[in-house]
Amino acid sequence: MRGVQVGMETALERYLPLPSSVPQRLHEAMHYAVLDGGKRVRPLLAFAAGALFEAEDAELARAAAAVEMIHAYSLVHDDMPCMDDDALRRGKPTVHVRYDEATALLVGDALQSQAFEVLADGRLPPQRQLAMVRVLAQASGSRGMCGGQAIDLASVGRNLSRDELERMHRMKTGALLRASVLLGALAGKALSAHETQALDAYAAAVGLAFQVVDDVLDATADSATLGKTAGKDAADNKPTYVSILGLEASRELAERLRMDAHRALEQFGEQARHLRDIADLIVQRKA
Amino acid sequence: MRGVQVGMETALERYLPLPSSVPQRLHEAMHYAVLDGGKRVRPLLAFAAGALFEAEDAELARAAAAVEMIHAYSLVHDDMPCMDDDALRRGKPTVHVRYDEATALLVGDALQSQAFEVLADGRLPPQRQLAMVRVLAQASGSRGMCGGQAIDLASVGRNLSRDELERMHRMKTGALLRASVLLGALAGKALSAHETQALDAYAAAVGLAFQVVDDVLDATADSATLGKTAGKDAADNKPTYVSILGLEASRELAERLRMDAHRALEQFGEQARHLRDIADLIVQRKA
Repeated sequence: MRGVQVGMETALERYLPLPSSVPQRLHEAMHYAVLDGGKRVRPLLAFAAGALFEAEDAELARAAAAVEMIHAYSLVHDDMPCMDDDALRRGKPTVHVRYDEATALLVGDALQSQAFEVLADGRLPPQRQLAMVRVLAQASGSRGMCGGQAIDLASVGRNLSRDELERMHRMKTGALLRASVLLGALAGKALSAHETQALDAYAAAVGLAFQVVDDVLDATADSATLGKTAGKDAADNKPTYVSILGLEASRELAERLRMDAHRALEQFGEQARHLRDIADLIVQRKA
Repeated sequence: MRGVQVGMETALERYLPLPSSVPQRLHEAMHYAVLDGGKRVRPLLAFAAGALFEAEDAELARAAAAVEMIHAYSLVHDDMPCMDDDALRRGKPTVHVRYDEATALLVGDALQSQAFEVLADGRLPPQRQLAMVRVLAQASGSRGMCGGQAIDLASVGRNLSRDELERMHRMKTGALLRASVLLGALAGKALSAHETQALDAYAAAVGLAFQVVDDVLDATADSATLGKTAGKDAADNKPTYVSILGLEASRELAERLRMDAHRALEQFGEQARHLRDIADLIVQRKA
């Protein structure tokens, strides 16, 4: 999977506007926001899902780049002073610290447009390419990632039930992880309702596991390992799985979700091994 | 054209998520940002261009709603404290004043996703629908609207040449006006290179005229008439056509551009009367 991560840097760079092109400062900041950092979980998911149906690498790289640009834009905006006000991301100063707030705002806005431009410019049958644009747009918007972020903001200092917390995460991070899986699979072929359902179940389990593990790491790891400020959720009085369930039950939940993810893939056989590996990787990661 | 404006409110409302759906506050704020205000110049352009090729109203409304959502999101973000820091828009408190900054940021982000979702969900041949997504994404991104905004920010307090000013506006407002024309026309049929070229020439003239007139009005009208803070460009030390050319030469330029716009439409005959009317309307408006 290291190969996907290295190849992904090349693909992301290719699908961004040249940093030497006008407006240079904005383009440089877009590169700064996207390149040379991150675990690339969404591209990994897209490539692993593409392997189910023998999707071509070029089309997978395009889909993965689009979804990673959406993710990168959301981080730039989330880090801004009016949101999480974070100064460190992936071990580097955040975009509004390195550049300025107005540039960070525009970097996020322009990366979102770029994601749709890249995706709409693919070489797959137009019907399928259009379906991919719809999947990405739904996952990004007010009933997906942005909506989850809004619920997250409104929940600071409140007591959320476990169901409320789960819904928030299903939108805030789950929606885009699901889109990564579906986009990768759609790069291979049009999906049956049955296949979509199985991939949804997998993505739901992996997405939630990802968040539970994030909460565990935020409570237990240090900033240097994470490449971002640790212990921030507790300091911000944000509800987390650890604050609701406790540390040990959160670890058990992550493990159960890992098994759910494996079970959802049963119909796909050996072709699904990359997706299985990612579920393991997400739950067993240390940062 | 009043009919398009009234019908547009209905279409925009239909293509936005219900304000009663979760997350309610975000959805309410999206409605607040988009509905009940604005001259709807971009929808007017889309409908007028659609009339060239007898596009269906339903598909035109969809394209017009998508482009107007992009415009509305850009206003919400431009008004934020880290950008223009404006408290009044269309005679109402701006979104970050009425709600809060984090909500304004998310409203803009979610409206951009919504625009692409709405556009990708149309009923036109997939090839054409995909071309429309590409046109809108290119116009919105770093080589279009966002890029123009970045150049605008970088130019505050600097002396721009007329060419530099024109390039900035071609990106900042011109790109989305051009997209409005092309999307409307594409809702009718696939365009030949010759037709695209003529529509580009029209859109370039109208787009620039729009900005020149904006600068003239900012220098001469009052806030109540404009529905936004007047005299702000001069106060912010922003270069404008009035500051570079003077008031009288700016008015003459707008009139010359109006004639350029008419000339670009010659090949389309009587079918282009709505596009001609809009060029007149833009140059002769008082607010």
